Amino acid sequence: MQTVQTMIATHPAETGVDREQLSRVVDLLLACSAACTICADACLAEEHVADMARCIRADLDCADICAATARVLSRQTAYDADVSRSLLQACITACRSCGDECASHADMHEHCTVCAEACRACQQACEKLLAAMS
Amino acid sequence: MQTVQTMIATHPAETGVDREQLSRVVDLLLACSAACTICADACLAEEHVADMARCIRADLDCADICAATARVLSRQTAYDADVSRSLLQACITACRSCGDECASHADMHEHCTVCAEACRACQQACEKLLAAMS
Amino acid sequence: MQTVQTMIATHPAETGVDREQLSRVVDLLLACSAACTICADACLAEEHVADMARCIRADLDCADICAATARVLSRQTAYDADVSRSLLQACITACRSCGDECASHADMHEHCTVCAEACRACQQACEKLLAAMS
Amino acid sequence: MQTVQTMIATHPAETGVDREQLSRVVDLLLACSAACTICADACLAEEHVADMARCIRADLDCADICAATARVLSRQTAYDADVSRSLLQACITACRSCGDECASHADMHEHCTVCAEACRACQQACEKLLAAMS
Repeated sequence: MQTVQTMIATHPAETGVDREQLSRVVDLLLACSAACTICADACLAEEHVADMARCIRADLDCADICAATARVLSRQTAYDADVSRSLLQACITACRSCGDECASHADMHEHCTVCAEACRACQQACEKLLAAMS
Repeated sequence: MQTVQTMIATHPAETGVDREQLSRVVDLLLACSAACTICADACLAEEHVADMARCIRADLDCADICAATARVLSRQTAYDADVSRSLLQACITACRSCGDECASHADMHEHCTVCAEACRACQQACEKLLAAMS
Repeated sequence: MQTVQTMIATHPAETGVDREQLSRVVDLLLACSAACTICADACLAEEHVADMARCIRADLDCADICAATARVLSRQTAYDADVSRSLLQACITACRSCGDECASHADMHEHCTVCAEACRACQQACEKLLAAMS
Repeated sequence: MQTVQTMIATHPAETGVDREQLSRVVDLLLACSAACTICADACLAEEHVADMARCIRADLDCADICAATARVLSRQTAYDADVSRSLLQACITACRSCGDECASHADMHEHCTVCAEACRACQQACEKLLAAMS
């Protein structure tokens, strides 16, 4: 989203993290959180919902963790690298778990295909940001 | 975001709400929530932070309300029009209040200018969706 | 929770809202949000999960709206009565809807019974606070 | 809260985590998240708010991370130990950081004293749960 990029660009503080990269990660976190929220809801409307319980659970967790991570990473005032790093680790774990689960239903449900892609893109961007922070 | 649009398009349920319009509103809610989170943090880093207390408060409320509204509107299974409508009303109120507050600092802080625009765009999209629902 | 009551009691700002009543409402909002999160998850583990789709949807919405309302009401700096009131209206609507849905499964699932009670208690406390604010 | 304990007790799934301990952690996470939300808002109303910018930032992060952790831990269906463990690590880091920051203002602001205690209690409960999970 252009909005996130412009907001992060106009921030008066300085964190040492590249702002373009940071903007891209926040965008992907928001997209992944939204995709997981919608995927959980779409799974709930499927005929064989009992088969989707594990996917719904993974979606709900990933949505919550990505939303919190987007908020924490968006903040640049009094930056705490330890908090950002440990939360990125948790987010990578959640995106991997949810991406794997969604990918296993990709041949059945298009929403799982799209959600798996959103999880993968988010996971990889978080991994790169974590590497750049270390 | 392309992700939200594709996810909403592939949903198996039917709500009667236009999916293109819904996708656009969810995108603007997520953008507004992110803008408010970053604006609150940017205000906190400004030299005259005491003058920004009202803006930070409005930002934090608007971020929380837009995030919850994005989630609720994203869901299409077992759609409850009363819940969507009353939450849209609250969201419109929060966006108007935060947009007004940010606009009053627009000559001082570019992040407030961008945030005010995000609030206005979100408010107007919510108003149109509410009108389409009634 | 004692924590919420003490935190609200030690706040330096003044909103005109009774702090004891406010603390009680925030407690009930947090309890309702947690109950709805757990009820959605418990429904997902039930044998006839397809019958619970409407309940899960209502739970997830109510959890998100109560969590946002708890945050907004917790804040006393630069209090905006319009935002609080419209959000309380949305919260009352969500608690009524979710409480009704959970109550309809109360003979089958104890978690729905407990969740319905949490929704009712939260709804009534929000209604009283809204009346006190008007 | 009695509500969380009863909800977790009536859940049909089985995670292998002790339910009493889990209920206590969820309660402390919700209390810490609420304390941090209120502490950030109380700091914003203090006369020397510029001195509290670091505390407000830590509060907002800790509130978001504890809220997400409370939700993820509340869920017992299709339990994923890796996600719970990595999120607990992030939560412990955030509680330690925020508790330290609040403790450094404890002689000035009672809300920081109470918030520091909520952070410590939450951190310790998360550490014990993490140890019990390993």
